[in-house]
Amino acid sequence: MDFEVIAHDPSSGARRGRFVTSHSTVETPVFMPVGTQATVKSLSPDELKDLGARIILGNTYHLYLRPGSERVSRLGGLHSFMGWDGSILTDSGGFQVFSLARINKIEEDGVVFQSHIDGSRHMIRPETSMEIQMHLGSDIAMCFDECTTYPVAYEYARESMERTVRWARRCKDAHTREDQALFGIVQGSVFMDLREACLEKLVEIGFDGYALGSLSVGESKEQMLEVLETMAPRLPASHPRYLMGVGTPEDLVEGVRLGVDMFDCVMPTRNARNGMLFTSWGSIQIKNSGYAEDRNPIEPGCTCYTCRHFSRAYLRHLFMARELLAYRLNTIHNLHYYLNLMAGMRKAIEQGRFEEWRKEFYAVRSGDY
Amino acid sequence: MDFEVIAHDPSSGARRGRFVTSHSTVETPVFMPVGTQATVKSLSPDELKDLGARIILGNTYHLYLRPGSERVSRLGGLHSFMGWDGSILTDSGGFQVFSLARINKIEEDGVVFQSHIDGSRHMIRPETSMEIQMHLGSDIAMCFDECTTYPVAYEYARESMERTVRWARRCKDAHTREDQALFGIVQGSVFMDLREACLEKLVEIGFDGYALGSLSVGESKEQMLEVLETMAPRLPASHPRYLMGVGTPEDLVEGVRLGVDMFDCVMPTRNARNGMLFTSWGSIQIKNSGYAEDRNPIEPGCTCYTCRHFSRAYLRHLFMARELLAYRLNTIHNLHYYLNLMAGMRKAIEQGRFEEWRKEFYAVRSGDY
Repeated sequence: MDFEVIAHDPSSGARRGRFVTSHSTVETPVFMPVGTQATVKSLSPDELKDLGARIILGNTYHLYLRPGSERVSRLGGLHSFMGWDGSILTDSGGFQVFSLARINKIEEDGVVFQSHIDGSRHMIRPETSMEIQMHLGSDIAMCFDECTTYPVAYEYARESMERTVRWARRCKDAHTREDQALFGIVQGSVFMDLREACLEKLVEIGFDGYALGSLSVGESKEQMLEVLETMAPRLPASHPRYLMGVGTPEDLVEGVRLGVDMFDCVMPTRNARNGMLFTSWGSIQIKNSGYAEDRNPIEPGCTCYTCRHFSRAYLRHLFMARELLAYRLNTIHNLHYYLNLMAGMRKAIEQGRFEEWRKEFYAVRSGDY
Repeated sequence: MDFEVIAHDPSSGARRGRFVTSHSTVETPVFMPVGTQATVKSLSPDELKDLGARIILGNTYHLYLRPGSERVSRLGGLHSFMGWDGSILTDSGGFQVFSLARINKIEEDGVVFQSHIDGSRHMIRPETSMEIQMHLGSDIAMCFDECTTYPVAYEYARESMERTVRWARRCKDAHTREDQALFGIVQGSVFMDLREACLEKLVEIGFDGYALGSLSVGESKEQMLEVLETMAPRLPASHPRYLMGVGTPEDLVEGVRLGVDMFDCVMPTRNARNGMLFTSWGSIQIKNSGYAEDRNPIEPGCTCYTCRHFSRAYLRHLFMARELLAYRLNTIHNLHYYLNLMAGMRKAIEQGRFEEWRKEFYAVRSGDY
């Protein structure tokens, strides 16, 4: 995968880059909307494109269980199946196996678990994860890893990290698809020596990009930031750096400041479906009765389809009446907020004024602006 | 309301017309998608427009209860509230009061009932229905009527019809909004003398259009057709004729043949959400396992957004996974089918070949084509 850094911010680790897949050119830092089951919930591919998304995330675990990765392969691959001509990154299945399924056994060979859909028994080995992701035909595949929760004992975190490294080796060996990049995932929980040891071994194996896993899994904001501050700058500068499953708008800003290039998170989409909408000054709950006759858009000045056409009063009505359109209009706004936030940071880095941009970002949120 | 008939089919009662409201020109015969709670479920106003809809139906009963018609009025009326710049017809609330709410009392003055949302007690009088619809600001309002079920005793049907006529008189007196048309509703169940008596009295009062109510409420297809065959041609030819809440594609074709100009029904939208999709040869259940790897669109040759972009396999996956996008894509297809069916009939009438068109319609459905 072609990756180039085209600008560095002079006073932070922030960097402005670009990578090219066989489906699209992706400008970084980038936020990837989550399309778990071959759809970013409630949106059409056209809407995603209009929002400026050029890469989305698909979940290996979900697609393996339903509709099945071999089926997707027979149907021409994930892009064709879901009608999305941009890029796709698939996760390894690890996180969902550990968070959604009922784990029966973690062993050297792989993980035995029961489906959250029908209780059926499955085993995913590193080689299985590669096979599934090659069937799906994503542009970027992720190594199969164990995602530790927080808190975790040092000794377990070490064993788990070492197994994840051995699995990464097996993933690299099993991965043969040349039109698909493969990223390694740095584990080690909040223990910096484990994170560093993991990174060193992954770099030895050699991947197209490097990700930080198991963050935002229960540790404090300070602990997450500490791992990020220590590790993000050490991820190879020549390759994309990906902070998995994170996070709030503030998390994205801090990640970018420390040199992260890629993010994904369900927060904008899931919160939208729960009526929580993002604005520059913080988030609002659309169900609040104060919005019942509010003719303003969610955020005055916002250029998203929802804000250009509908009032808070209408969005509140749709949400209270549990109308399907509510979920879509809210999702459009929240994803616009996230993608626009990233676009703002990209521009600020290009202009060498990221730190200034960041101060304004926080000032608006604290009401000092 | 301006209404003109621009073509008559030579060998049937079918007619091609046009009416103009302050929001749009509507070509008839027309099908009106149902937008119960200020939204045609799952669709944006843009999508409705792209589908060719120029008039939709809103439900007075639902909007009165939530968000409240005075609130809608303060927010600029229903068009502005929901971002729809085409025409809107509102029903009278009668049908929903009688089908959804718990009726406490039907009396000369009006109906006392309990909300299906929170059990709260309300009374709707003919004057209330007019006030609500004038607040909503629809282009066409309907008289408040009692919708009888089937079967119903002759004596009750007669009393009910006579009350409906008295209510129609009160509606006409209470209705003062000049930018809103008012239609009368012919009741009388399957009893032709009652239907005719009702019509005669409504014409005496004088309305902008005339509707047939309480059809497709439990009577047989033959009984419905009998009422339709007797009554549709007798509705004043100079005014729009509206068959309420009907029906299947076949019902629309028979209605048009008998001179009906307007239709509405939840069938295309509700069935879409249940995975039942319309095609020219009949309907299909998208959940059938036979579609799991079917790369065809719902109907080959269909020009709707869904059929141009997605396979049956993908639509089945979305439906099985209960993804929100399923309901939207299915709704788009089904409404396209209905609106396209009407467009086909309009063209056939213009060309004086409606009967030929109708034969082909049935031939395709019986597999003889």
